[in-house]
Amino acid sequence: MEAATTVNNADNRPVGLVLFIKELLRGTAQVMFQDKLWTGLFILTGIFWGAYAEGSGVVAWAAVVGLIVSTATGHILGFPREDGKIGLWGFNGILVGCAFMTFLSPTIWVWLAMILCSALTTWVRTAFNKIAGKLNVSSFTFPFVAMTWVFLMASRQMNAMPSMLPSPHFPGDLSPALSLGFGDLVTYWLKGISQVFLINSWVTGIFFLVGLFISNKWVGITTALSSAVALFVIIVMQGPGTEIANGIFGFSAVLTGIALAVTFNPLGWKSMIWALLGVIVTVFMQASMNVIFTPLGLPTLTGPFCIVTWLFLIPAINLAVKKKSA
Amino acid sequence: MEAATTVNNADNRPVGLVLFIKELLRGTAQVMFQDKLWTGLFILTGIFWGAYAEGSGVVAWAAVVGLIVSTATGHILGFPREDGKIGLWGFNGILVGCAFMTFLSPTIWVWLAMILCSALTTWVRTAFNKIAGKLNVSSFTFPFVAMTWVFLMASRQMNAMPSMLPSPHFPGDLSPALSLGFGDLVTYWLKGISQVFLINSWVTGIFFLVGLFISNKWVGITTALSSAVALFVIIVMQGPGTEIANGIFGFSAVLTGIALAVTFNPLGWKSMIWALLGVIVTVFMQASMNVIFTPLGLPTLTGPFCIVTWLFLIPAINLAVKKKSA
Amino acid sequence: MEAATTVNNADNRPVGLVLFIKELLRGTAQVMFQDKLWTGLFILTGIFWGAYAEGSGVVAWAAVVGLIVSTATGHILGFPREDGKIGLWGFNGILVGCAFMTFLSPTIWVWLAMILCSALTTWVRTAFNKIAGKLNVSSFTFPFVAMTWVFLMASRQMNAMPSMLPSPHFPGDLSPALSLGFGDLVTYWLKGISQVFLINSWVTGIFFLVGLFISNKWVGITTALSSAVALFVIIVMQGPGTEIANGIFGFSAVLTGIALAVTFNPLGWKSMIWALLGVIVTVFMQASMNVIFTPLGLPTLTGPFCIVTWLFLIPAINLAVKKKSA
Repeated sequence: MEAATTVNNADNRPVGLVLFIKELLRGTAQVMFQDKLWTGLFILTGIFWGAYAEGSGVVAWAAVVGLIVSTATGHILGFPREDGKIGLWGFNGILVGCAFMTFLSPTIWVWLAMILCSALTTWVRTAFNKIAGKLNVSSFTFPFVAMTWVFLMASRQMNAMPSMLPSPHFPGDLSPALSLGFGDLVTYWLKGISQVFLINSWVTGIFFLVGLFISNKWVGITTALSSAVALFVIIVMQGPGTEIANGIFGFSAVLTGIALAVTFNPLGWKSMIWALLGVIVTVFMQASMNVIFTPLGLPTLTGPFCIVTWLFLIPAINLAVKKKSA
Repeated sequence: MEAATTVNNADNRPVGLVLFIKELLRGTAQVMFQDKLWTGLFILTGIFWGAYAEGSGVVAWAAVVGLIVSTATGHILGFPREDGKIGLWGFNGILVGCAFMTFLSPTIWVWLAMILCSALTTWVRTAFNKIAGKLNVSSFTFPFVAMTWVFLMASRQMNAMPSMLPSPHFPGDLSPALSLGFGDLVTYWLKGISQVFLINSWVTGIFFLVGLFISNKWVGITTALSSAVALFVIIVMQGPGTEIANGIFGFSAVLTGIALAVTFNPLGWKSMIWALLGVIVTVFMQASMNVIFTPLGLPTLTGPFCIVTWLFLIPAINLAVKKKSA
Repeated sequence: MEAATTVNNADNRPVGLVLFIKELLRGTAQVMFQDKLWTGLFILTGIFWGAYAEGSGVVAWAAVVGLIVSTATGHILGFPREDGKIGLWGFNGILVGCAFMTFLSPTIWVWLAMILCSALTTWVRTAFNKIAGKLNVSSFTFPFVAMTWVFLMASRQMNAMPSMLPSPHFPGDLSPALSLGFGDLVTYWLKGISQVFLINSWVTGIFFLVGLFISNKWVGITTALSSAVALFVIIVMQGPGTEIANGIFGFSAVLTGIALAVTFNPLGWKSMIWALLGVIVTVFMQASMNVIFTPLGLPTLTGPFCIVTWLFLIPAINLAVKKKSA
């Protein structure tokens, strides 16, 4: 009976169903650097809400499958359990699921390719971490980013993987103007948060925010501020209207903000300023990568976040605030 | 008299002509991870057959020149002899020769650039190995790949290097359908092997296979299976007909297969499954890089093999099969 | 009173105005691997002359601002002083200033982005050096190159940053022929030197040469020879006329030449030959990167120099010439 509810790893130590589900929820939360179960549950709910609201519930189901596959892969390959326990096997896989069904049609071959790609992220993460680890950073969501790029581009040579990717063209033509009413701005701001999981829904943004506040109020505050700052910067710089309205300039900035202000630096005003700089640079990196990928019709995914956060963490600048003490 | 038949290295220790020729043959075999003289001879014969059958014998002669130049460069620079003895200086150079004359017209300037590029691969290999070595892998054919990319792209700005490279265009238009008769399939399968050296000839594929079986039956079997699996996957995924017929999806897959199943992992069913996964991922990587390089009209060369094999080797997953013993 | 003339670093150790100005002049000279004050002054004068002669004096002022900002950033972040003293914080920033105003219109937002980008190079240099340092090389001008690429590409999505960047198109169309009179050749040769700072002026080239001869005659000689060799190679290879006339094939070659012949290898005929090879390969790398960036309308900046010099330094080939001694 036990066997039916367990996933075995190479060492044949079974993991119970309840523990496995906890790993899944933590994996969901880890996309935004958290490991609380409730945070994972709120985010997952937000994904389902947004996917169905957009009329593509398959995105949410693929997210769950990607999450399960990549987490199970860690067990099957016998990777060190401590990573799996806190959700570090699942966060790339859940994003693979979201991205595949956002940009590709759900044929059987796309599903199979998605499962392969999700599994792949688990050992590619180990590979990338060996490189990044020498620089005292981790690979973040880059295993998801890099492997999804590979499969999305491959789809252009494979009729069995029909895509909704944008047409390749030369960069240069900016989208038309942007409506700047207060309600509009709030929508863009919340979509900047929901787009972390490639969901284009302000309601989902609220679910995510609530989940993050449950985990840690500073994470919630940083998320809210980062998306707002990114929105402000790209509006001031007169960026492309459609992308701004869809939250494209928010999602990487949000992740950079959390990473630099809370996760990898001590809380304090120095880290806040550092994170603010990081968020601003992420907006430029986002625009830049949008342009660079235009001749391929390829989305940047969370690549801008990864690159900027590496550039701001590798120098290992001391951001501890000295206490005035006796 | 001795002097006329020797190549001197920086330490002035001469290498005899016979030893040097052995290094050349081993260098030929090392493209496919072997070091047997007969394997090198069969491969070289296959290259000459295929080149003349295609009506471009210059490809074969350039291969020989590239092989000699890159091997001699190792001696001239005084690099550690143990690498040269087993052919590790020559395998990039022979591929440079094949690629230059496949994509460029054999003007005097192309010959000179080819000689420079072949020599370059020998110390670029040392440079890349210093990077890769920290991750317990080697640079494989990437010195050839990277340096040939540089010179092929440079040719577009140099009228002295006329090229037969494809015209740059946006990705998206798939080639027409593919004939799937049994004889056709066998031809595609063998061309997938011959294309390791950029030769488009099923007879050459047979020469290569025989040479590999002479070296190690498992290498021969893996080569045959890898090209077959890659062909199956790309047909199922409905890839582009012309490229499939020319073996474009086979050559990197073959190298990935040999590397993962035999060269860098212990023989056994676990390594076979790992190699199978690697071969499948190589097909997606090949399609992806085909697309990414389309706006430049640049061939991927064996780049897909290098990248996928690194991703599958760096995590250092234990694939030893435990023996049932008393 | 002191406070008004000092820039404080994180440790609150003040740096005097005179010392700070010395750091700026050394930072200017460090672009070409020198640290003499007079060299910096001659180069700066050349920049001002060339910028005003071209009718865009703003380039020179932006160079000064970029230099000041990136140098001050090193103090503010409390980076180890020994780097700052010899100008290693400023050389990326001065190039950022030159590049921004060469390719973008000087709106208020471009100025602010330029200040951000200049500051960024100081800690990105620390990050890149952590990577490069493991290979016993440094990051050279790559912090400037990489970060400027990011902002230049971002400008295509930001109407607040109007650009004079070339239109993206497919590579392939070569510019018309080149006038080869003696006076023309001298002009191209000197512009190859002035373009190190993105200045298109033969007079500036003379200023730079004088400054380099003041620092070290071998540096002056190597600079003159490197630009000449690069010019010869690209003319022989029949490269694009307009780019040749504007010195585009000279600036990276000059830096490669100095680095390989003087700065990082012992003086002698072996290093000279090595540098000669490096200069020739840089010409191919320059043409190649010109082509690769054409679909984006992006300039290569000094990227070709960085890549080639890494490839020639990382193998750590012993180029010491043994003295014949008793």
